[in-house]
Amino acid sequence: RIYNFNAGPAALPLPVLEEIQAEFLDFKGSGMSIVEVSHRSKWFDEVIQDAVTRTRRLLGLGDQFQVLFLQGGASLQFCMVPMNLCSRDQRADYVDTGTWSTKAIKEAKILGRSVNVAASSEDKNFSYIPEKFHFTPDAAYVHFTSNNTIKGTQWSAFPDTGSIPMISDMSSDIMSKVFDPSPFGLIYAGAQKNLGPAGATLVIIRRDMLDRVPEDLPTMLRYTTFAEKNSMFNTPPCFTVYHIGLVLKWLEETVGGMAKMEALNREKAAFLYEAIDSGGFYRGTAEEESRSLMNVTFRLPDESLEVRFVREALENGMGGLKGHRSVGGCRASIYNSTSLDAVKALVDFMKTFAKKYG
Amino acid sequence: RIYNFNAGPAALPLPVLEEIQAEFLDFKGSGMSIVEVSHRSKWFDEVIQDAVTRTRRLLGLGDQFQVLFLQGGASLQFCMVPMNLCSRDQRADYVDTGTWSTKAIKEAKILGRSVNVAASSEDKNFSYIPEKFHFTPDAAYVHFTSNNTIKGTQWSAFPDTGSIPMISDMSSDIMSKVFDPSPFGLIYAGAQKNLGPAGATLVIIRRDMLDRVPEDLPTMLRYTTFAEKNSMFNTPPCFTVYHIGLVLKWLEETVGGMAKMEALNREKAAFLYEAIDSGGFYRGTAEEESRSLMNVTFRLPDESLEVRFVREALENGMGGLKGHRSVGGCRASIYNSTSLDAVKALVDFMKTFAKKYG
Repeated sequence: RIYNFNAGPAALPLPVLEEIQAEFLDFKGSGMSIVEVSHRSKWFDEVIQDAVTRTRRLLGLGDQFQVLFLQGGASLQFCMVPMNLCSRDQRADYVDTGTWSTKAIKEAKILGRSVNVAASSEDKNFSYIPEKFHFTPDAAYVHFTSNNTIKGTQWSAFPDTGSIPMISDMSSDIMSKVFDPSPFGLIYAGAQKNLGPAGATLVIIRRDMLDRVPEDLPTMLRYTTFAEKNSMFNTPPCFTVYHIGLVLKWLEETVGGMAKMEALNREKAAFLYEAIDSGGFYRGTAEEESRSLMNVTFRLPDESLEVRFVREALENGMGGLKGHRSVGGCRASIYNSTSLDAVKALVDFMKTFAKKYG
Repeated sequence: RIYNFNAGPAALPLPVLEEIQAEFLDFKGSGMSIVEVSHRSKWFDEVIQDAVTRTRRLLGLGDQFQVLFLQGGASLQFCMVPMNLCSRDQRADYVDTGTWSTKAIKEAKILGRSVNVAASSEDKNFSYIPEKFHFTPDAAYVHFTSNNTIKGTQWSAFPDTGSIPMISDMSSDIMSKVFDPSPFGLIYAGAQKNLGPAGATLVIIRRDMLDRVPEDLPTMLRYTTFAEKNSMFNTPPCFTVYHIGLVLKWLEETVGGMAKMEALNREKAAFLYEAIDSGGFYRGTAEEESRSLMNVTFRLPDESLEVRFVREALENGMGGLKGHRSVGGCRASIYNSTSLDAVKALVDFMKTFAKKYG
């Protein structure tokens, strides 16, 4: 197996993959594979309840929150959020930190919602997280993307929005560090970075937000549909939910919980950024105080060296280091499942490469 | 392993499950699991292209059709179909054969579309497929559900709608028998019966239907979004698509194609219906000419015997025989992956049970 620095779908914990492999033909003595078990069976009911309970425990969610699993990725949430939570006579505030935020804004506008961009870092090619905001006093919500996988930026602290509920796309940094969920009206996250394989979207909704959901929306686009049926209105993406549950179990029982995960993630990122900052060969692309702990983006002296870097890294057993096609350069995604050993191997390779071509 | 008669998620081919298990830690020498591979990688590109190509070949789809994989199940298609393909000044025709058809009609009405129920079997509790239709001459489409998993009914031949495109929810009988796709504007199917595990929806769209898609729909609710990006606008449900591809490979290379699959399915169903019809202990619930080859629904002399039947069957290694909670009784779902051996074992058990309690 290689060291996998993919941006998502991404590395997953090897013990989890081994457990899935071991029980793939016979799930818990059911005589069936997990992919063959009815979603209305006691077996799957335990699976989804376990994933919900572990999510609640890991994030410290109070009773005011409900944990749901949907489909369609974060991209579907870009339209479900304004459809469900912002009426046509309200205004929705968005912070634009590029890429995913920009797409979320676009969908709110397609739906005819009045959007206030409360802050943007477009002036510097989205290389930083804004610190000054112009919030609408009675905004329906303030939406932001907690981590930008492509630009390599991440919010280190969340803004104070007073009584306005915050909504965040946390697809690429959920479960990576401790945070206070209480100011959030809704949190959503595509599974395929820290949670599991692609194919499910974690949605955490504060119950009072459900009162906003218009009754004339199509059934499958209403949060209330999923809330009332505990994500089981129709057949959920069973395998992905099962896989997520096992990743969360690993996070709780093997890693030891969120605080330990955060400490490890900080150690990994510090190690990698130090390698970038020393020597002058590599150059980080995000402003220092906005750097992501999850996606470390950097450039080399020229593009041909970047191509060579990605190729030689792969030859040395390290994959997924090419930057997103929209920005170029290099990127090491170091989500929860990427080990410190993987990061150390990468740093060793980076030093050797810089010495050879610097 | 047990004989699995679940209605969906349902039995899948054992050789496919074994292949997935064997390569779960290292997909095709990538050094990664299929769940860790980037959806933009050459590995996944081959996976999704293979699933598309096999679908085209198995169903004999001409160039006028595009094959897509979406998320959200058939339930999301209930609203996407009218949103995308019926303008507000058009009328959409629906045939109501209960349950899923009824839900599809409900969603079209929520969207404010003018619905003509061209035929319905509600008068006899949806126990048959109608044969007389009142189509609207310039209807946007005629929608029907090709197989009702709960009532145990199935269309044995499709209606002649002239120049009006047919749209069908084929979730529970796609790839079970040969049919002519040419009169269809769109076919959709949740994966979790004949195709693979839950978490993906196969959508086959005739390219001219894409011209109808309004530009003011949210991006993730437009068929054009998926058609233009070959199902890769955002991260697709990679594992499910991979699993579907392997099931289709099994269907082509092990079973030997659609004609052989159909013959086997007809043999299985004939065997089971014969057991129901002989002896007077069991009673089929669907009218004879509308009986499903996929979901065989039947009653016993009383409900306590039905409970006992389901329990004793499970003790004898046969699972999933309880009827849907909305109708009661018993149901044996015998999708493509359920073997003739499984059906023979069930028939033997049914005979023994009838002798014991009849």
